[in-house]
Amino acid sequence: MVQKSAQPSQKPAPNSTRRSERSRRAIYDAALALVSEVGYPKTTIEGIAARAGVGKQTIYRWWPSKADVLLEAFLDLSEQASELAAKEGQEPFEFPDTGDLAADLKFVLRATVDELLNPRFEAPSRALAAEGVVNEQLGAVFVSKLLEPSLQLYVQRLRSAQDQGAVRPEIDPRIALELFVSPLAQRWLQHTGPISYEYVDTLVDYALHGLTPR
Amino acid sequence: MVQKSAQPSQKPAPNSTRRSERSRRAIYDAALALVSEVGYPKTTIEGIAARAGVGKQTIYRWWPSKADVLLEAFLDLSEQASELAAKEGQEPFEFPDTGDLAADLKFVLRATVDELLNPRFEAPSRALAAEGVVNEQLGAVFVSKLLEPSLQLYVQRLRSAQDQGAVRPEIDPRIALELFVSPLAQRWLQHTGPISYEYVDTLVDYALHGLTPR
Repeated sequence: MVQKSAQPSQKPAPNSTRRSERSRRAIYDAALALVSEVGYPKTTIEGIAARAGVGKQTIYRWWPSKADVLLEAFLDLSEQASELAAKEGQEPFEFPDTGDLAADLKFVLRATVDELLNPRFEAPSRALAAEGVVNEQLGAVFVSKLLEPSLQLYVQRLRSAQDQGAVRPEIDPRIALELFVSPLAQRWLQHTGPISYEYVDTLVDYALHGLTPR
Repeated sequence: MVQKSAQPSQKPAPNSTRRSERSRRAIYDAALALVSEVGYPKTTIEGIAARAGVGKQTIYRWWPSKADVLLEAFLDLSEQASELAAKEGQEPFEFPDTGDLAADLKFVLRATVDELLNPRFEAPSRALAAEGVVNEQLGAVFVSKLLEPSLQLYVQRLRSAQDQGAVRPEIDPRIALELFVSPLAQRWLQHTGPISYEYVDTLVDYALHGLTPR
């Protein structure tokens, strides 16, 4: 769920004029606002263009489809959040590897809790997640471009823990990470329970040490 | 995700005539078909009535809203599946308690894999799950009536395991069950990976024994 390190596969060619930068920002804002307000199916390139105050050809010149616009709008939202954090003196996001696996996982999951509870992020994320449930093609694009790259950071951290002897060598890290990432995702997606720092800390402790007595 | 033991809070009053039983079945079928085809927002009482060949007053007499119709159509679908299984000589579903926690959890999760991959179940489930992501009120109804009662069966089984000394006494069963239930749910909801018997078996083993060396 941490999306800060995901990279778009194709960025629009950098345009040096201020005006097109302003247009791009307006298009991102319009796309995120529309998908929050009317949902993914009713969000159209025409609607985004009208709201952003640009011609729809401007959008088609940069992006082949609304899915691509939204994907980049999302990546941009994450980048903006990182830049804001940097301005506030925070270090840029990197998946920590302090040698204390539990602490590192809790740190990242707590940041994800903050992100999931961020109102700017919530409405467009929900609209896109909902569409992904019934639209496998769109879901697959967002998973491969946004979610999976974040999950791979957990894979790397768990592999490092295996090298350090902190995780059993026979464990598949890609499945293991789901023991703490998926419960948080399901609570958020399906409203099955509250999410909090204490909750994700508990997930990490249960996953690392198991439910059976030692 | 196992929905067989969930009970509706208000069943329509049993009507002894064959005709109204036939109408009710037609309404359920129409509701499930429509939500699969056009999604939850575009499914209306009028549309269900037209497709079922009944007057919309017939529907309003039995159910206050489309959410209630769909909820009962879903419960009915689960009951039909149980009846079919019984006819085929299978025992009615009960969460097993053989004393072997891992085996019991794997048994139930494998049944859930079958259910999630059942084409009759998939389209309406996805349509409703997608709506629940963006419509907290609807999501909450489906969670409280359908999902949470199933999850409580895991809670009971884990409590029994705690009494038997097979699960650590300080574990919260309501959180613990998410370590194997939520990964399966997220893969199904978000298309983040394939689901199979082998996968759920692995989740149970990881959750029970933990990721760290023993």
